[in-house]
Amino acid sequence: MTGPCEVPLLLTQGDPGGIGPELTLSAWLKRNEVSLPPFAVVSDPDHLGRVAQSQGWDVPIASVEPAEARSVFDRALPVIPLKAAVSAIPGKPDPAYAHSVIESIETAVQLVRDGRAAALVTNPIAKHVLYEAGFRHPGHTEFLAALAAEPGGPPPHPVMMLWSEELAVVPVTVHIPLSSVPAALTPELIVLTARIVARELKDRFGIPHPRLALAGLNPHAGENGAMGSEDSTIIAPAIETLRAEGIDASGPLPADTMFHPRARRRYDAALAMYHDQALIPIKTIAFDEGVNVTLGLPFVRTSPDHGTAFDIAGKGIARPDSLMAALRLAARLGAGHAGP
Amino acid sequence: MTGPCEVPLLLTQGDPGGIGPELTLSAWLKRNEVSLPPFAVVSDPDHLGRVAQSQGWDVPIASVEPAEARSVFDRALPVIPLKAAVSAIPGKPDPAYAHSVIESIETAVQLVRDGRAAALVTNPIAKHVLYEAGFRHPGHTEFLAALAAEPGGPPPHPVMMLWSEELAVVPVTVHIPLSSVPAALTPELIVLTARIVARELKDRFGIPHPRLALAGLNPHAGENGAMGSEDSTIIAPAIETLRAEGIDASGPLPADTMFHPRARRRYDAALAMYHDQALIPIKTIAFDEGVNVTLGLPFVRTSPDHGTAFDIAGKGIARPDSLMAALRLAARLGAGHAGP
Repeated sequence: MTGPCEVPLLLTQGDPGGIGPELTLSAWLKRNEVSLPPFAVVSDPDHLGRVAQSQGWDVPIASVEPAEARSVFDRALPVIPLKAAVSAIPGKPDPAYAHSVIESIETAVQLVRDGRAAALVTNPIAKHVLYEAGFRHPGHTEFLAALAAEPGGPPPHPVMMLWSEELAVVPVTVHIPLSSVPAALTPELIVLTARIVARELKDRFGIPHPRLALAGLNPHAGENGAMGSEDSTIIAPAIETLRAEGIDASGPLPADTMFHPRARRRYDAALAMYHDQALIPIKTIAFDEGVNVTLGLPFVRTSPDHGTAFDIAGKGIARPDSLMAALRLAARLGAGHAGP
Repeated sequence: MTGPCEVPLLLTQGDPGGIGPELTLSAWLKRNEVSLPPFAVVSDPDHLGRVAQSQGWDVPIASVEPAEARSVFDRALPVIPLKAAVSAIPGKPDPAYAHSVIESIETAVQLVRDGRAAALVTNPIAKHVLYEAGFRHPGHTEFLAALAAEPGGPPPHPVMMLWSEELAVVPVTVHIPLSSVPAALTPELIVLTARIVARELKDRFGIPHPRLALAGLNPHAGENGAMGSEDSTIIAPAIETLRAEGIDASGPLPADTMFHPRARRRYDAALAMYHDQALIPIKTIAFDEGVNVTLGLPFVRTSPDHGTAFDIAGKGIARPDSLMAALRLAARLGAGHAGP
């Protein structure tokens, strides 16, 4: 059996027509400059070779088994080959390669669950392309949760965290219209989310006593009910429940005054009530370095905090900063959790 | 007639039991260190003298007429005396001094409207204290708008801008529950607000062709209707109207990706659809230096971006950064607009 120090990080292919392939190559080229942990990508080696050639980049490609990846990494980009052959054109979404996107994710999840990889980093996918090819999951994360389910059991509840060195935020509700947020917020959802965050800050991030700060929903956290009731009727009771369980949870806090540098020192993660309340502060201060971490899965999964960016794919201008940050965080979180 | 170079900025007293008096004294003490423009405060000279003494600060107080303020400023804090005597205790809200708060605002507005002052900077007030004394306006800004109305005419529509060197934001809706935001947003309100912002960026801030960026309401600005319709049915039509009038307005933009440093270079002011969407980014990056500017009034009015802070009043620990930034911005905006 190999331990976490011997197995690599696995990077999925993502949409082969997006910026994933060139970011993967570009991250490998910077491996020494920025001290990247060894990783292997689950993809078509020939496709990656063609992308490297089209950019004029000198990236030797090596088809490997996971166990060989770490020893190869210094001299070549280790690729765990797909069955599917990929000839995607950068910038062109093409459902013909949807099966390669799915095969890459399924293979990577199987390897990490088998202890043959330390953690998963996923390149961006384009849901609409997958839908055209018959994909039925609401999104990337839900697909991973389904793959993570125990046989016959329900999928785990995944929680999205946006992480940077300066700030970690978790939106309790995510991709829903703003007008649907108040009805979607329940004490149960807040408690469920906060429990997962507290547990993983402890177990994966190594913070013995994690401090959670919960944002209010309304301006000034409702100002004692003067501007909305949800802060006192939904969020405050959730915080009481969490405290009764021994979780260090504070709030509801006025959302506008909780993200400046002094305020950020008071907590390890902030729980926001909706998408923009979480993503505005982190993308304002860490636009290129933010990492998406999925909590609540039985393995570590991080991903860069951007999409496929078909509009700039193939131009060699996409920045690998977020992917590199995702690789580094995955290595840190996966260090103690690779084996069965 | 005196011109804008001869008349001072006027600072209102604000709540005499809050941090306003000590911030006023503290700003005067730092006048040379941080190159503050000359200002006079409309207050009770004896009260300010007592606050200075209790802090052990050497601040000579000079009762003056507005026209004398600039020549006095270097050696003493110029005070335009109120009729009301104030003996407020720091940290104690007291309706007995509500009339002094109101007299200070009314006097300052009269002087700036008469061209005897260049611009107005208001210290924070406590609405609940004023309400106990019979004050009937919804807030500080609405009171100023009422005082600014032409005789027999309606009050002007005031627009709140939060300004810092790095970012200027305007919330289109402000102090309402989040659940009320979608219904409160109309193309008319967005257009009215944006017109005032564009006009004042040009006339007062001296930007010949102001660029406005409008945030979407929903995550990813609704992603073509996949997550809410208001971005396409309310905000996009407002932007079309503004462009047809020759105003440089862009959007609706995903709110999370419009506030990082590169994105901020693309506009002069961002219009946000609700309180926290505007205040989260500016308070995250400029917590101590943010200035509140009221646009849409016939005179310049700025204020520090904090409240009365009764909990720390009298302790000498409140930071005058935001008040000093408000004084500097008022001087800049008021330079060409002081006289009748």
